Amino acid sequence: MIDESPLERVRSNIVIEFEDNAQAKIIYDSIILEFSTAPDFRSSMTIDLDESNIIINIDAEDSTSFRASVNSAIKWIKLALEINDLTN
Amino acid sequence: MIDESPLERVRSNIVIEFEDNAQAKIIYDSIILEFSTAPDFRSSMTIDLDESNIIINIDAEDSTSFRASVNSAIKWIKLALEINDLTN
Repeated sequence: MIDESPLERVRSNIVIEFEDNAQAKIIYDSIILEFSTAPDFRSSMTIDLDESNIIINIDAEDSTSFRASVNSAIKWIKLALEINDLTN
Repeated sequence: MIDESPLERVRSNIVIEFEDNAQAKIIYDSIILEFSTAPDFRSSMTIDLDESNIIINIDAEDSTSFRASVNSAIKWIKLALEINDLTN
């Protein structure tokens, strides 16, 4: 099914803007380990910190693995934000 | 909760590559109406066709509405692909 699909590749660049550089760094440091250890053979993900932005790049072979990667990334960020909010 | 969050905005550019221009056009034509009618006050989505690529831009106020938009977009594309595969 996947091999016969006319969809060749899904690439995405996600920019998450934070209030300030410090907040972005806190969230980045909380989730970097998840990104470096997440195993996925059909998609690859990178995460970068650029001042007050976290930039996530996803390169997936099909729409299912793309969706799984986006959902994981957003869940990690949301969890880190919620813990961060609790401590403020 | 959302107003207090240090997350300001989530922006994404998703590029979906197809085998050829014709396949990209078929999928684009199938889903364009969904994009133009989907109501969402916390995020906006645009879709463009560029040769064999479909390009989706999402601009969201928070991670929840971003995730909802990505999931809707991917579901529409996946459904269009599955119907397309059935007819081939």
